[in-house]
Amino acid sequence: MNCILLPATNFSNDSAVINELSQISHVNKVLGATVGDTLKIGQLEGHLGTAVIKSISADSIQLCDIQLTMAPPAKLDLTVVLALPRPKVLRRLIMDMTALGVRDIILINSYRTQKSYWQSPMLERLDEFVLEGLQQGVDTIAPRIRLEKRFKPFVEDELASLITNRAIVAHPYSDLSFAQYLLQQTPQQSLRLPSLVCIGAEGGWIDYEIELLAAQDCTAVNIGPRILRTEAAVNAILGQWLL
Amino acid sequence: MNCILLPATNFSNDSAVINELSQISHVNKVLGATVGDTLKIGQLEGHLGTAVIKSISADSIQLCDIQLTMAPPAKLDLTVVLALPRPKVLRRLIMDMTALGVRDIILINSYRTQKSYWQSPMLERLDEFVLEGLQQGVDTIAPRIRLEKRFKPFVEDELASLITNRAIVAHPYSDLSFAQYLLQQTPQQSLRLPSLVCIGAEGGWIDYEIELLAAQDCTAVNIGPRILRTEAAVNAILGQWLL
Repeated sequence: MNCILLPATNFSNDSAVINELSQISHVNKVLGATVGDTLKIGQLEGHLGTAVIKSISADSIQLCDIQLTMAPPAKLDLTVVLALPRPKVLRRLIMDMTALGVRDIILINSYRTQKSYWQSPMLERLDEFVLEGLQQGVDTIAPRIRLEKRFKPFVEDELASLITNRAIVAHPYSDLSFAQYLLQQTPQQSLRLPSLVCIGAEGGWIDYEIELLAAQDCTAVNIGPRILRTEAAVNAILGQWLL
Repeated sequence: MNCILLPATNFSNDSAVINELSQISHVNKVLGATVGDTLKIGQLEGHLGTAVIKSISADSIQLCDIQLTMAPPAKLDLTVVLALPRPKVLRRLIMDMTALGVRDIILINSYRTQKSYWQSPMLERLDEFVLEGLQQGVDTIAPRIRLEKRFKPFVEDELASLITNRAIVAHPYSDLSFAQYLLQQTPQQSLRLPSLVCIGAEGGWIDYEIELLAAQDCTAVNIGPRILRTEAAVNAILGQWLL
């Protein structure tokens, strides 16, 4: 937690209140902060800044001297279409994509996504994982998240309208490497990277899925001979947007 | 597990045996393979290839028709100096760095590394995490791992001799971005990337550590305004080597 984000309703004039237990525990145990100390805070969907601790009780922390002067960092011009991963991995993936600044996340069904994943209670907790990611990445604007349980209608009817620049699909068995793909593009950094990236579940996409994606102008690219965990692959690929 | 790695002692002539329970369980439960099926295998420190299942019992799987014809992928010309992370994160980090093909990993003490991490039983299990990483990344050559419990003597007396090309240290508070740093280098891809990368624990490096590293020609670079989990940062940074 590199900043503490509070909803607008927790602010009034020059004061604010922390009443989430996880945040109170972080202030007490991790930061070891006391009355008079300054905290890094932010207003959800608003600005970032600082506040001073006025008082601490078991179930709330009162803040004063609120200074919210810094705009959140710009979102990446990036939509990630991700095959719904194992519930255990979902939390970290949502956190990481949020911290990295992905603007749109689409969790989609795929042949290798187990049906039971769609029944996972973790899917009810996406807002919580997003908040963790924003507090990690020091941002206030949540990514938009959509769930698409039907692969074919989504890809055929909706995908094309979401591609503002170009699209790729990560596929270890493509002959084209991501490096070669980027060399084919304009050297202008802002246009060099695709605006939509499709990443499969463990085991990747099946040929039929790659064909449907290709028909919507998603270019299949590999990231080398090594096969990474979905989590590692997402961060390794999205790392290109940090440069 | 994208291939099953066996030590040389498990091979004889044209046959081999799997006797690790985790590997037997993978063949039975994840792959659902039976007698006559072909498996992707490899010999530790040797080649990759295939084998056919000859028989399956509760505690061993006999393999025949061993074909080990493919050399493992080249290691990256890269040494990662990593502040010893939380034990829970250590397993995934060792797995991921191994799967990505890092040649040398140096786990080092830092001001923000808790003393108790050095007593973790996880440190006795590094070989196991390396094996997981190799089987994930489809490689047979383990990275070299060193533990360095004393930061200053290591940095002052040994670090310089490990830098074959150039070195960077990831530091959110550096004014120089990794992108700017790369633009300053030769455009030749093989020489463009540094050969040694220092990455801190949660909370990063303190100024004193950055100064000691800078004195050994480690250039501090940032990867943008967003702060990532150590795990996400390692994969996002090392993703540059996949291109």
